[in-house]
Amino acid sequence: MTDGLIGAIEAGGTKFVCALARFDGAIVARTRIATRTPAECFPDVAAFFAAAPAPIAAFGVASFGPIDIDPASPAYGTFTTTPKPGWQGARFHDVLGSFGVPIVVDTDVNGAAIGEWLQGAGQGTRTLAYTTIGTGVGTGVLRDGHALMGFSHYEMGHIHPGRDAAIDPFAGDCPYHSDCLEGLVAGPAIIKRWGTSLDQLADDRAKIDLIGGYIADLAANLVLMHMPDRLIFGGGVAKAPGLIEAVRHRTAARLNGYVKNPRLDPGLETYIVTPRLGDDAGITGAIELGRHALRQT
Amino acid sequence: MTDGLIGAIEAGGTKFVCALARFDGAIVARTRIATRTPAECFPDVAAFFAAAPAPIAAFGVASFGPIDIDPASPAYGTFTTTPKPGWQGARFHDVLGSFGVPIVVDTDVNGAAIGEWLQGAGQGTRTLAYTTIGTGVGTGVLRDGHALMGFSHYEMGHIHPGRDAAIDPFAGDCPYHSDCLEGLVAGPAIIKRWGTSLDQLADDRAKIDLIGGYIADLAANLVLMHMPDRLIFGGGVAKAPGLIEAVRHRTAARLNGYVKNPRLDPGLETYIVTPRLGDDAGITGAIELGRHALRQT
Repeated sequence: MTDGLIGAIEAGGTKFVCALARFDGAIVARTRIATRTPAECFPDVAAFFAAAPAPIAAFGVASFGPIDIDPASPAYGTFTTTPKPGWQGARFHDVLGSFGVPIVVDTDVNGAAIGEWLQGAGQGTRTLAYTTIGTGVGTGVLRDGHALMGFSHYEMGHIHPGRDAAIDPFAGDCPYHSDCLEGLVAGPAIIKRWGTSLDQLADDRAKIDLIGGYIADLAANLVLMHMPDRLIFGGGVAKAPGLIEAVRHRTAARLNGYVKNPRLDPGLETYIVTPRLGDDAGITGAIELGRHALRQT
Repeated sequence: MTDGLIGAIEAGGTKFVCALARFDGAIVARTRIATRTPAECFPDVAAFFAAAPAPIAAFGVASFGPIDIDPASPAYGTFTTTPKPGWQGARFHDVLGSFGVPIVVDTDVNGAAIGEWLQGAGQGTRTLAYTTIGTGVGTGVLRDGHALMGFSHYEMGHIHPGRDAAIDPFAGDCPYHSDCLEGLVAGPAIIKRWGTSLDQLADDRAKIDLIGGYIADLAANLVLMHMPDRLIFGGGVAKAPGLIEAVRHRTAARLNGYVKNPRLDPGLETYIVTPRLGDDAGITGAIELGRHALRQT
């Protein structure tokens, strides 16, 4: 199994990153395709992979969602309830199936988690939680490099941190839950609340602390409900100066020493971390998903 | 592999249930041993299994904790930070190791979850969450009949539902977190708050609703963070009349239709349920853990 290539797609809301990689992960070709309707962008995706310089042995896809990621489901790889025009019911197998090779589909956040696990801040962990806080909030949890799921991928952005209206009068902007985590800390919520992004508010300790406290609710729940070896927080909001420190501080306060384990270092500085791969996490994870597909055959 | 027996232990804080079962699960002998120090009760345990009418092929143990349940750990099967006199550092292999057969150790809540998955209210599920609400609060999550874990078993009783002091002035009684879930809804907390157990308060809808709302915080988190096919709530507190209905109602309100899946029926009556095996769940799960041990060899 030394010749052949892996086809990888990181499918995001604004662009698809498509890559061809050798089995060792080295990328031999790469392109960006603007996300439009499937009818508009799938042909570009097909054309890129059709021009591969060697046979494609498997595909790995890390995609925006919601999408069916249960390999046992007849709708595996199909977009479900997304409001994105044209995407509900679209399926990656529609564009990749004609290659006749195995396809593994997972979520974008699980893909980034896998990337960080393989080559980034999650290296060496058995159980890893990777959270992205950007236009939305999502978490992927890996066990031995594979994403956990139940009947669907997780939706942790919608947990409810418990807002104290006397301290934080902003009612939240999630259309389903108002003040769930995503409704309080995602990028659009922060702009709606303060008129600017969190990185512009880094000098305002109270604001950083407020957002950090909400995120710490997720962090503490992750510890108690998944016991990961490490927590990674990425995405645009997580880059705000001082935020990761606030998350560490508030998580430690919440747990209050109850979980005794050397992984949880006193200041949580090695336990709660930022990503290392940056924009490459997703495509790195997608290539690894292609490797999963190869191993299954 | 048709002869031989499985040795099973359900180790609780007040008693050990020990059983000898055929591989098909039929119990051929069973005893109760009062939980004292390991030095006092381990010899009784050893004597029971030494008198087995056929060779023992494997042991399954479902135990109170905290206990190391990571098979890869050198301390597998060892009690860790329990305040119970004599138990810290005690190990099931101390009493069972001399039989020279494989031993699988898991928590009591994971054991009960496995029992309900195999023969009770969790039958037919791939991902199952079983929560017990009694003297403490704990949840086990199974995937295909095996308990999930991270660097340790989960500790979901210590999540923080967010108490509104204007509605509920009781500050909670968890020594680590005051008003975490266990500090608000476990049996001792309810007695401390209202002077009686919750089943005596079944006519007081506001009280049932308050406790149900806290438990619904765990239920909603379980959905968003594990996506189980079903949630079981057992234990003494969960038996209070009207409580499971309150949990269903408050969980549905919290999720507010966001998670669309046929498993979540409109009233959550088939999604959030009570156990079916009663007191037999633990030993049934322990026997199944013994089967896991057999499969690993």
